[in-house]
Amino acid sequence: MLILNAPYVLFLGAVDSAAQAKTAFGLRDWAREKCLSEYALPGCTIELGLPRYALAEARARGARSLLIGVANYGGYIDPAWLPTLLEALALGLDVVAGLHARLNQIPALTAAAAVSGARLLDVRHSAEPIALATGQPRSGHRVLTVGSDCAIGKKYAALALTQALRERGLRARFRATGQTGILLAGEGIAVDAVAADFISGAAEQLSPAADPAQIDVIEGQGSIVHPIYAGVTLGLLHGAQAHQLVLCHEPSRTAIRGYERYPIPPLSSLIALYESLAQRTNPAARVSALSLNTATLDDATARHTIAALSAELGLPAADPIRYGAAPLAAAIAAAATKYSTLVP
Amino acid sequence: MLILNAPYVLFLGAVDSAAQAKTAFGLRDWAREKCLSEYALPGCTIELGLPRYALAEARARGARSLLIGVANYGGYIDPAWLPTLLEALALGLDVVAGLHARLNQIPALTAAAAVSGARLLDVRHSAEPIALATGQPRSGHRVLTVGSDCAIGKKYAALALTQALRERGLRARFRATGQTGILLAGEGIAVDAVAADFISGAAEQLSPAADPAQIDVIEGQGSIVHPIYAGVTLGLLHGAQAHQLVLCHEPSRTAIRGYERYPIPPLSSLIALYESLAQRTNPAARVSALSLNTATLDDATARHTIAALSAELGLPAADPIRYGAAPLAAAIAAAATKYSTLVP
Repeated sequence: MLILNAPYVLFLGAVDSAAQAKTAFGLRDWAREKCLSEYALPGCTIELGLPRYALAEARARGARSLLIGVANYGGYIDPAWLPTLLEALALGLDVVAGLHARLNQIPALTAAAAVSGARLLDVRHSAEPIALATGQPRSGHRVLTVGSDCAIGKKYAALALTQALRERGLRARFRATGQTGILLAGEGIAVDAVAADFISGAAEQLSPAADPAQIDVIEGQGSIVHPIYAGVTLGLLHGAQAHQLVLCHEPSRTAIRGYERYPIPPLSSLIALYESLAQRTNPAARVSALSLNTATLDDATARHTIAALSAELGLPAADPIRYGAAPLAAAIAAAATKYSTLVP
Repeated sequence: MLILNAPYVLFLGAVDSAAQAKTAFGLRDWAREKCLSEYALPGCTIELGLPRYALAEARARGARSLLIGVANYGGYIDPAWLPTLLEALALGLDVVAGLHARLNQIPALTAAAAVSGARLLDVRHSAEPIALATGQPRSGHRVLTVGSDCAIGKKYAALALTQALRERGLRARFRATGQTGILLAGEGIAVDAVAADFISGAAEQLSPAADPAQIDVIEGQGSIVHPIYAGVTLGLLHGAQAHQLVLCHEPSRTAIRGYERYPIPPLSSLIALYESLAQRTNPAARVSALSLNTATLDDATARHTIAALSAELGLPAADPIRYGAAPLAAAIAAAATKYSTLVP
């Protein structure tokens, strides 16, 4: 198992949108105690609110790793980052990335790491082999977050739901399927990086057969209506064999971000589509709740929107980050009690 | 571009089912002129009907490459094959594989290849980088074969349809998405081996914008109802942006092969599912014809079944291998004329 050395310096490159810095924000929000400082290049317009130290000072204050906190389009390693990465390695900091491209395939970096003894860690690429899915039913109780789009709150919903289930006294475990989730959880499989035949197998492997009283909360990926990534979403949906789905949505978003010719369909039809496809491998699968990201709305509008969508779709709804995940946890726990072996 | 040296020795290992030898059968059936002989290990129960020579004799008769004709579960390199592969390399034969596992990652093989100068060719792994899909509409006219299951005739339907369209005077081109298709066409992308995020991008890349009078016939993969591989199928469906789909089915098959707990749904609902998902990226997408694999049926039953399914579903139907692909080509050409820029 990969073990990361904390505390971290979160590296932002020259990002100019919060979406591109979602890895860094995820670490700040969910593993704050491991984050010492942030570091950015000229042109960066995003601030995490952490101290900004020069790398040498961060090292002197105890930093052990530089984490690339950028989630760029295509998952590449920007050549503009290389001086920073080389400086970090020379200082003895591990460099950690969750990108498609691999630090370990850049000779200048591997040479610098060899000199200083620091490590290059590509967490998106599983060191352990993935098996093909079996499609066999398995024990345990699984919840999967699904979305109307990418970058809409599926990971945060899963993290918040896991915490809230634990606060109810249930045994819940977050199962990471993406780079940031893996950085937070310390384990997982980046399902978008496995060979395409193995998507469902990766989903089976990361949420294996378990005690029926255990709830695995699996981080969803992409969207079944996303024109680029829906294959990943469907493979994960099939392999997860989830009993319950939590549909994640941002009410102000009407089209797929970055692909505006693709509208987000009505949520009722999206729910029907997710349920019908999920039921192929778990006939019990149902959408149990809505997780709404209302960050762009004022408080009154947000509360009204949550109530209105809940009434319209006949499902419990909440913004788990803004108002707490207790309503989601209550809905999941209530539905889970239908499975007789699960003791709340 | 990868160029394979012919003629080939088709290597069968110790396979005991025709399904496992589908790569070898594909080469025999569609590139017979490039196949010199077959070679098998003790335990193999399959015969291709080619001469069986010892490797040294095959070499003496002009063989240039040993092609691994096995499509095994998981795409691994069986250690039992190594003596054969080493013998082939020592004789100066290239060794060609279309597996997930890579010949080039086995030190004994790379060492032997270095000694003799023969090549290790992993055709499943694209040497060129794949870009993420764009989701942008593109010119050209595309046909995708889709299936009720794996190994049901999608590749052969696409090959036969391409030939039949050419016989009608149309400009048609086969676009390979799997290992055997690539071996036959000499180019293509194995979409099941790309990183999961890039499935749709691979589909866009292998059927790029084209003259509207050009028909790309794209080899389908998996099935949208397959519990293991549906993610690949959906990513390919979205990226292909096909105008027409050809649904491939084996009438005697009632469940997913090897996963019998998963029934094949009624074809009418399968058609509706494929069309609704395909229309996300090409609103014009329709299933135009049925390609039926009747190999397990006697002639009378086969003809009756084709006619009955055609009537039931209101679609032209044919077994393109047994009775010819002309009816499929007629259906595709007729539907294509609805696109005004396509001149039949």
